[in-house]
Amino acid sequence: MIDLLIHRCEVLKVSAAQVETLADYDILIEGNRIAAVQPANQIDLSHAHQVIDAKGLLAMPGLINAHAHVPMVLFRGLAEDVSIDRWFNEYIWPLERNLQPEDVYWGMLLGLAEMIEAGVTMVADHYFYMDRAAAAVERAGTRALLGWAVFSSSGLDALERTAHFASDYRSAAGGRISTILAPHAPYTCDDDYLRAAADWARRLNLGIHIHAAETKYETEASLKRFGRTPIQALEQTGILDRPTIIAHACGATEADIALIGNYPVSIAHCPKTYLKLAMDIAPVRAFREAGITVGVGTDGAVSNNTLDIWESLRLMAMMQKDRAENPEVMTIAEALTIATHESARAVGLKGQIGALEQGYLADIILVDLGGLHHQPLHSVGASLVYAARSTDVQTVIVDGRVIMRDRQLLTLDKAEIIANARAAMDRLSQRRVEERIQTYNP
Amino acid sequence: MIDLLIHRCEVLKVSAAQVETLADYDILIEGNRIAAVQPANQIDLSHAHQVIDAKGLLAMPGLINAHAHVPMVLFRGLAEDVSIDRWFNEYIWPLERNLQPEDVYWGMLLGLAEMIEAGVTMVADHYFYMDRAAAAVERAGTRALLGWAVFSSSGLDALERTAHFASDYRSAAGGRISTILAPHAPYTCDDDYLRAAADWARRLNLGIHIHAAETKYETEASLKRFGRTPIQALEQTGILDRPTIIAHACGATEADIALIGNYPVSIAHCPKTYLKLAMDIAPVRAFREAGITVGVGTDGAVSNNTLDIWESLRLMAMMQKDRAENPEVMTIAEALTIATHESARAVGLKGQIGALEQGYLADIILVDLGGLHHQPLHSVGASLVYAARSTDVQTVIVDGRVIMRDRQLLTLDKAEIIANARAAMDRLSQRRVEERIQTYNP
Repeated sequence: MIDLLIHRCEVLKVSAAQVETLADYDILIEGNRIAAVQPANQIDLSHAHQVIDAKGLLAMPGLINAHAHVPMVLFRGLAEDVSIDRWFNEYIWPLERNLQPEDVYWGMLLGLAEMIEAGVTMVADHYFYMDRAAAAVERAGTRALLGWAVFSSSGLDALERTAHFASDYRSAAGGRISTILAPHAPYTCDDDYLRAAADWARRLNLGIHIHAAETKYETEASLKRFGRTPIQALEQTGILDRPTIIAHACGATEADIALIGNYPVSIAHCPKTYLKLAMDIAPVRAFREAGITVGVGTDGAVSNNTLDIWESLRLMAMMQKDRAENPEVMTIAEALTIATHESARAVGLKGQIGALEQGYLADIILVDLGGLHHQPLHSVGASLVYAARSTDVQTVIVDGRVIMRDRQLLTLDKAEIIANARAAMDRLSQRRVEERIQTYNP
Repeated sequence: MIDLLIHRCEVLKVSAAQVETLADYDILIEGNRIAAVQPANQIDLSHAHQVIDAKGLLAMPGLINAHAHVPMVLFRGLAEDVSIDRWFNEYIWPLERNLQPEDVYWGMLLGLAEMIEAGVTMVADHYFYMDRAAAAVERAGTRALLGWAVFSSSGLDALERTAHFASDYRSAAGGRISTILAPHAPYTCDDDYLRAAADWARRLNLGIHIHAAETKYETEASLKRFGRTPIQALEQTGILDRPTIIAHACGATEADIALIGNYPVSIAHCPKTYLKLAMDIAPVRAFREAGITVGVGTDGAVSNNTLDIWESLRLMAMMQKDRAENPEVMTIAEALTIATHESARAVGLKGQIGALEQGYLADIILVDLGGLHHQPLHSVGASLVYAARSTDVQTVIVDGRVIMRDRQLLTLDKAEIIANARAAMDRLSQRRVEERIQTYNP
């Protein structure tokens, strides 16, 4: 018996060379995996426990958010039109002083619900109180790679606690949760701390998710202060020997890029943050030419304002054209490859998610390209990269389970989540500048 | 009696200094104008013919698209990842050879329907067969400034016909349509033709809507060939003496900007096109510092892919931050001012649309900021610029008439429009390169 049959859909097939669709196909799901992708009507519908009639819908891999701080949705809209220095020192870190574990739980649920509605089935999240974030992921039914953020100032005992979290939750939620260590950045973690994190990662066979070279200013400051770039700091402390996700790297030098190419490192690219905070745009094409995996992310909603991967994908493609002064680069096929296969690799799930293939985990979204803004539909690829909206996503399946159907969330109660987020608004919006959790001074 | 009462809404008030909202307000509409904006419950509901209960919704001015080629939605997705030269010579102009008047009618309806769904109530449109576009506007119930595009190669008789069109339709559709002359660009219209267009504009008391200085390359080519910039060509031929909308001006020099500031000229800014075609970003801040009005537009859907002004607005703000390398510039209040007051001025309707004030035309949209992607709603302004989606628009009123209610189009039949657009797909997608309507060689 087939557990779930997605019947008569169009199936998206992405490679760096081209975007194709297979019309009138069935996707057969057994347990949490894709059992077959085949022309429709080769199987009798009575052989499936559950059938989704997907005629007129495009089936594609669930979107992957390769870098976020999901619970920051709680602070959405509170830090606008400010310099990166003020953003950290007067807004984010003073605001985060207010966080309680239950805020993270509700903030995570709010952000996960927003992402489910947008077709995002997997997120690499980097934040605090991640045991509560894990509880939210368990409830939402999505997939997540969770890292508990720490600074040097948190102390080595905090690092150890986050290592225990990572060890304890490494295949939680029936395997939907994976874990990673999450020292914040070379400018908030000194060398001893980074070495200790690399040690824990080696001992527990974990990767590391860290911010580095966020801006050219950070790179210059590091060179001036320590005679090395932030990327070199990661190399010297052993971080890069572990499978590592580096968020941003807008300030990576040419030498940094060559260096990164020698290690098992992926870069998470979050272009909306870079534009809003004028951080310059990371050189995605140069990364890829150096053989570095690039995944696409949103970053937190205090810089991005949403957790919309469609928008990140679109901005990535457009900004690479802009920076190259060449509209022929970063084609639709390449952009979709990055958002699917490459983002899967970035979050450590190469060959598991990011494509609709037999044996892959059944993380699938059904997208309606019938809206006016796609008509007439000359090009599915162009519509996905340049016209699609979150609201085009109709149905979301994660790990073989339907968690949104016809835009109705099946695992989460929107009203309850919104009520809880609103209840904490006033308390969470107090800027406790003198008590901020950290200082930005790279 | 009040014709239409928008009851218990929140009202958006935008100035360059700040974004405010008035909670629990009524908007009273008599005929096609706003009669009052006042605290709720000062008027008995029985005094209104029609009442919209807008509790929980934000009322704001209908969005304005200051530059588009709406019927190009018919070619959406057909010209991707190509240079601007190939975009014109191998795609757009060969494709446009296929256009018949009825294509423009259905393409215009398709694009108008897409815009209504996105809260766009007014468009400055620049295209062919504009009598058919006018028929579509008449039917859709929106507002439009229509210009019939011509090239030198169209001949002076064609220019004269477009002038007659502009004269005949100058207050068509009960005043919802205004008209303008639309010579294509200095690189497709020679000096005699531009002078003739300026003459017609003067004689008929009309403005001019034209492309110029689209790229730095165009400016350099013009300097090399004619010893003057495209903007100087407009000045020398008398175009700038008329109220003029210049689309793009990404290639405007500092001297051009100073020059433009001396004339009744607005610039229509369409950043998604600039990114997708790597045209560089027009210096909006420099325009505004020179006292030049800037309105925001989408351009056609073959470069933009959609007609979504929310996205144009967001990209405008983010790209100005990017180019200035300063996140504190182009604040939320300034971006919203450009999208409302300034765009109204750009399309010749200053003091008529772009604000919810007594005496203004009743072009109003009701926006739901209750979606997950806005929660918790700390900042209405931040949500409008950085999180809002077309689908947040619930209800659209133009000229006092409700044309979309709870996301249902009331004037147009979506299925009929889509069927007509699809029926023409194959015919319209033939690239008749040898028969292209024009050649790009600025």
